[in-house]
Amino acid sequence: MRKTWSGSRVDLHIDLDASKGRRSALEAALRDAIRQGRLATGTLLPSTRGLATELGLSRGTVTAAYDQLTEEGYLTTRPGSGTRVADVPPNTPDSPSAAPMQARPRHDLRPGLPDVSAFPSRAWLAATRRVVADARSVALGAGDPQGRIELRAALADYLGRTRGVVTSPDRIVITSGYYQGLSLLSGVLVRHGAGTVAVEDPSHDVFRSVVQRARLATTPIPVDAHGARVDALTDAVDAVLLTPSHQYPTGVPLHPGRRQAVSAWTRTTGGLIIEDDYDGEYRYDRQPVGALQGIAPDRTVYCGTASKTLGPALRLAWMALPPHLVKPVVDARQQADLYTESLSQLVLADLITTHAYDRHIRATRLRYRRRRELLLARLPGVTGLTAHGVPAGLHTLLTLPADWPPEDEVLSLCARQGLALRGLSELHLDPRGRPGGLLVGFAAPPEHAYRPALDALSGTLRQLVTGPR
Amino acid sequence: MRKTWSGSRVDLHIDLDASKGRRSALEAALRDAIRQGRLATGTLLPSTRGLATELGLSRGTVTAAYDQLTEEGYLTTRPGSGTRVADVPPNTPDSPSAAPMQARPRHDLRPGLPDVSAFPSRAWLAATRRVVADARSVALGAGDPQGRIELRAALADYLGRTRGVVTSPDRIVITSGYYQGLSLLSGVLVRHGAGTVAVEDPSHDVFRSVVQRARLATTPIPVDAHGARVDALTDAVDAVLLTPSHQYPTGVPLHPGRRQAVSAWTRTTGGLIIEDDYDGEYRYDRQPVGALQGIAPDRTVYCGTASKTLGPALRLAWMALPPHLVKPVVDARQQADLYTESLSQLVLADLITTHAYDRHIRATRLRYRRRRELLLARLPGVTGLTAHGVPAGLHTLLTLPADWPPEDEVLSLCARQGLALRGLSELHLDPRGRPGGLLVGFAAPPEHAYRPALDALSGTLRQLVTGPR
Repeated sequence: MRKTWSGSRVDLHIDLDASKGRRSALEAALRDAIRQGRLATGTLLPSTRGLATELGLSRGTVTAAYDQLTEEGYLTTRPGSGTRVADVPPNTPDSPSAAPMQARPRHDLRPGLPDVSAFPSRAWLAATRRVVADARSVALGAGDPQGRIELRAALADYLGRTRGVVTSPDRIVITSGYYQGLSLLSGVLVRHGAGTVAVEDPSHDVFRSVVQRARLATTPIPVDAHGARVDALTDAVDAVLLTPSHQYPTGVPLHPGRRQAVSAWTRTTGGLIIEDDYDGEYRYDRQPVGALQGIAPDRTVYCGTASKTLGPALRLAWMALPPHLVKPVVDARQQADLYTESLSQLVLADLITTHAYDRHIRATRLRYRRRRELLLARLPGVTGLTAHGVPAGLHTLLTLPADWPPEDEVLSLCARQGLALRGLSELHLDPRGRPGGLLVGFAAPPEHAYRPALDALSGTLRQLVTGPR
Repeated sequence: MRKTWSGSRVDLHIDLDASKGRRSALEAALRDAIRQGRLATGTLLPSTRGLATELGLSRGTVTAAYDQLTEEGYLTTRPGSGTRVADVPPNTPDSPSAAPMQARPRHDLRPGLPDVSAFPSRAWLAATRRVVADARSVALGAGDPQGRIELRAALADYLGRTRGVVTSPDRIVITSGYYQGLSLLSGVLVRHGAGTVAVEDPSHDVFRSVVQRARLATTPIPVDAHGARVDALTDAVDAVLLTPSHQYPTGVPLHPGRRQAVSAWTRTTGGLIIEDDYDGEYRYDRQPVGALQGIAPDRTVYCGTASKTLGPALRLAWMALPPHLVKPVVDARQQADLYTESLSQLVLADLITTHAYDRHIRATRLRYRRRRELLLARLPGVTGLTAHGVPAGLHTLLTLPADWPPEDEVLSLCARQGLALRGLSELHLDPRGRPGGLLVGFAAPPEHAYRPALDALSGTLRQLVTGPR
């Protein structure tokens, strides 16, 4: 039943069939008319009795609606002068509705992303049920800026067991992702007087800028076949950001002699090692090499994450810190955003202590190992490409032969085929004179989409070898 | 089976029964001995053959362990000189294990905390199941710095329907709590040239310091029985932080005339309104008054949160922004920590669209309304205390009679009885000359603990009236 009241300067359409009830419908109609300027400031509204009669409503309904809108500031009531539209600025027209979600690329070979279709849904749900049932009265109360003790305890054990990290629950800090952790740590280092952080060249551009945004200078250390040239570190460097188990992006592990060298450097100069163990769980040819942190636990910040094992959307990462850095980092964390969401921390702690996390890692390790082999098996068909690094991680670096088109042309061609991958150049601090390359992630696609992605990749690359140039 | 190898300077205990296998056990034993300094730098290890014989292991096991530890940097091998302990600094003894969790107070009457034992576990689990099953391949991939579109769409509808907020999904930004949102917004305002934010006096001290930490000056606006004295706002103020529906901590709603005044102020001066609608869902005597944002949507940042409805540990909050602030806030958010964890965003979106969230709010509204009535029913027994504010929210402010002991003494006495509540003084910008008061939260305890908490409170307060002073 649609009713219309023709006021002094406005037709008020009121849909009384609306499920929300007559009073709400009247309120909404008046609110909209005022916002849209159809009922202008100062307009005298009809008396409650008059409007009630006209609309076939009870007088109480109209009075209640007028009161509500007066309370909200849309109407004003002065004794003797009736109810008028208050001085409310008309609303600008609504902007267009939200942009659609960014479409997933047809062939998702971006490096650093896991296959989220392998997410252990069943185990996650079971753990969530246990967490919500057993501990709900505390799990959802205020959290801990350092991270839930349950997760810190589980991680101290897990990291010692699987990565040789020497730590304890009180030295671990949980952050909403490695990105946040590195950002907080960088801020703390600046406040402690640090000025320069050495970064691998090439290295992840996003994390270099996190360091730089904290007003730390970055100085490059070259990467060769034995990993980062840490022998180049001097006492002018306050900290070094390393990916020792699987250098990003070249995939080379840090040579034992270099591990010795960086350990000597930290002892001699007091410099800090920041170890980004971003995919330390994924080694395919042998038992993973333990974390560098183990040989210098009091001078190393060990950083790990669930982004590569479960998914980046969980925003769960951890740092095992030297004792003197724990409080400053926790304080910085609290100032930034108090603490990390507790529920998923408790769920992850449950997954680790019940070994469901280990089982998930083992299953995905097999899956990624097979995918890497499939990728490499395709490459001999493409002349001249060189695959780098050890069998590990979620991506492989392929450098382009000198006689190929430049990297950006190769990437454009890939993009036109729906292939999403990364170029090497932007990971160099200064890409001039460096060979181009492709970072091919082999983990991101769901199982059914991996072979088609490989077909598209090898087909596209073959065009570059055989096509007219 | 415990084996011992007596090396040049060390007894190496190797527990071969360990479930992790012989090679791992040998590695762990060597690692520990090196870390603890029992195997000093330069120590020559026995030949693989010799150690294998001595320990009853295969030679391959020992060789593999030596290789692993060489790879990790604990050992060095030079042709012709055998395997030696590398130059690894001994580890300092572990610091004591993590401090125990902060104990929950016996009687938790802290303001601003919901009853997390009312958490809708069943609905949450059901929604989690749907989210993980239906969308897992996207839900756990990379997130959106603005917040998941599913949640923004659900909130745009929900906030319009329940709080009269005029917005659309593209104007909403999800943050990891209101604290983070206010912090990001403050940073954006500073970069846009703002210098001064007006804050209610009294108001939440934590949020004042968030604003101040962004290097904004805060200027007080007094609060009276009609809410904040927004008529005192001048054009020297760039933004005003308000709690219009239920002033924190006095519990007074902003008077309609004041709503008009602040709307006029924003139009005249271009100043920004920041509306903290922290407990807008909880009004007990009438339909909630709509958000202030509705009368000035292009000049108001509306802030809401799940902390008061579901629990602070979820770290889920939202801002409905004027169009010109969306991109700067999203950019700041991305720079800080990329984006909010996706899973709980999708679960909340599901709860809202299935109306399970409304049902939860209705259930808790009934519960809290009854608790507030129980609290007030106890007060007449305590002479002189005045309860302030309208029937709403999660707490009530009680001001202390002039002839009572000072606030800090009252709080100490309460603390000795296991009662956790807040004092009013620290919420004033300058507490001198202000009456003392108690903020009594009536929502935090689980149902069974509420009456005992009230007994303890009224018993303690009665002592102050009747006891010797």
